[in-house]
Amino acid sequence: MTRSVLAVTLGDPVGIGPEITARTLAEVAGQDGHHGIAVGDAEAVRRGARAAGLDVDVREVSDFGVEPAGPGTIDVYDTGVLGADVPGWGNVDGRAGRAAVVAIEVATRAALDGEVDGIVTGPVHKEAIWAAGSKHLGHTEMLGELTGVTRQNTMFVVRETEAEGHHLRIFFTTRHVSLRKALDQITQDTVTASIDEALTALRVFGVAEPRLAVAAVNPHGGENGAFGDEEIVHIGPACDAARSRGHSVAGPVPADSVFHQGLTGRFDAVLSHFHDQGHIAAKTYDFNGTISVTVGLPILRTSVDHGTAFDIAGTGRADHGTMLSAYLAAVDYSPYVPAIREAYGG
Amino acid sequence: MTRSVLAVTLGDPVGIGPEITARTLAEVAGQDGHHGIAVGDAEAVRRGARAAGLDVDVREVSDFGVEPAGPGTIDVYDTGVLGADVPGWGNVDGRAGRAAVVAIEVATRAALDGEVDGIVTGPVHKEAIWAAGSKHLGHTEMLGELTGVTRQNTMFVVRETEAEGHHLRIFFTTRHVSLRKALDQITQDTVTASIDEALTALRVFGVAEPRLAVAAVNPHGGENGAFGDEEIVHIGPACDAARSRGHSVAGPVPADSVFHQGLTGRFDAVLSHFHDQGHIAAKTYDFNGTISVTVGLPILRTSVDHGTAFDIAGTGRADHGTMLSAYLAAVDYSPYVPAIREAYGG
Repeated sequence: MTRSVLAVTLGDPVGIGPEITARTLAEVAGQDGHHGIAVGDAEAVRRGARAAGLDVDVREVSDFGVEPAGPGTIDVYDTGVLGADVPGWGNVDGRAGRAAVVAIEVATRAALDGEVDGIVTGPVHKEAIWAAGSKHLGHTEMLGELTGVTRQNTMFVVRETEAEGHHLRIFFTTRHVSLRKALDQITQDTVTASIDEALTALRVFGVAEPRLAVAAVNPHGGENGAFGDEEIVHIGPACDAARSRGHSVAGPVPADSVFHQGLTGRFDAVLSHFHDQGHIAAKTYDFNGTISVTVGLPILRTSVDHGTAFDIAGTGRADHGTMLSAYLAAVDYSPYVPAIREAYGG
Repeated sequence: MTRSVLAVTLGDPVGIGPEITARTLAEVAGQDGHHGIAVGDAEAVRRGARAAGLDVDVREVSDFGVEPAGPGTIDVYDTGVLGADVPGWGNVDGRAGRAAVVAIEVATRAALDGEVDGIVTGPVHKEAIWAAGSKHLGHTEMLGELTGVTRQNTMFVVRETEAEGHHLRIFFTTRHVSLRKALDQITQDTVTASIDEALTALRVFGVAEPRLAVAAVNPHGGENGAFGDEEIVHIGPACDAARSRGHSVAGPVPADSVFHQGLTGRFDAVLSHFHDQGHIAAKTYDFNGTISVTVGLPILRTSVDHGTAFDIAGTGRADHGTMLSAYLAAVDYSPYVPAIREAYGG
């Protein structure tokens, strides 16, 4: 087995990022043969490990190629933004925002240069990033600028499914817009583009012959137009066109059964059409096991899909389940880095 | 323990209803101390038991008060519509539709007269009912006419939740309308009415001090208006008003976390606003454990939330999990029949 090296960015150092990063790296250290290295301020990692009540050493490394120290040691690639002076927990702070931004820059550069196989990103706080003087809204914009990519998509991965050894992936036709606007954006063209992007992503991420299900948006799939016509006018024709091009595309499938069918192994992925459609399914099914893979970047990037939780930062109460799932997904997907680079490297 | 008697209508006798009814009654016969009695044609039950590969006796009873026969015997209250001549599996058939309608009439009458504690309804086929000369769309309209009720609602019950001994219930502000129309129907008034109906139903069904969460409809709950304003204009004010009247109502809560919070025990119920919002959550989480309780009728009625599955009827492949859950929910809710009668008896 080739050892995968993953850079795990702390996210905002005064949020729950350091705690959940420390917990995750402590849990996998020396166990899986791969090497997760925190990227951020070493002192923030130490404070996070203490908040999490961990009995671990924190080792500073200056080379992502270093041999892992093994169980009981967390490695951190120190970005040196904060030094010994880490701001207090749970507040919007420009220095903390700056530290979060630098960690992402360092990790992304390492991934672009091939020093790490991929990056796993902890949660950042939008206002802290703004307070640091960045104009970006979050990871998407930062990563786009750092990698020169303009079009990114999200692939949700639900790791625990009913079918043994099966992962369900969820794609999205629209994302951060109101539900009304999402409905306006669901057209045959956007659905067709989303189907094609999903099929490409599935192949890049190791599914040679992807079976995609496309969700409906109206109750019972609209019941032949009785409850809405998006299925007849837009989604159905996009599915038909994909099938006529030889793809294994089912749908439109009523949205209250399509995710269950996917989880039980009938499909490799579901294309959902609005943010909450896919989010409700994934997070209700497995809140901590749902992680996000960014599709379209020339690097492998997985992330948690939760925020900085300033209200509980530093209390040790944060659950690191999603961060652990994101790390493990990055390990799983490491073998596809050459394919990712080829497909999305520009 | 008082013995509860439940009338289980077969639904369309040429759909999967007889198989799943026979499986359910065979599974619980003599085991739980309660008495489930199939209502429909005895010959249809026999054929369903054979299709399901069950080694059971089918006993015809003419009185819902009869002592249960115990393990190995399924009781059926024969409605005598089809006699020995049950139509072939899996086709729209007016005689089958007529049999389905009569079973519902007989069971509903028995519940109204107090001969049974409640009814559990198998799936009917709309076109078969029409072929039988009925103008009704399905159970809702039939039950409304039989009981003289004009306003009914659905309470979904998810029986298996993460929190031990906890059932999550899901209510709906809108139902069988397009997603666009549902958005138009979400107003402060309709949400307020739905909150009140949900709180009443929870008390009727045994939750003395209900904790209700109200879902948002836009991504991240709209993020203060950035992604839609239904939360600001309609849902939020309705929640505020309910709280000011002293109710335990949380929300609007982003819809991708509210169901998880409910399943882990933080809330007794979630008010969802459009059909698929609640359906995706419940059925993705527990497809076979999600059942429907009709709220507003003067009788206890639970039902499966799937169709007649004509394509697999008679093959023995139908899963009776949802029917079993619906039966067990009816047993659970039997103690509340006096409260149901008082609240909704008119």
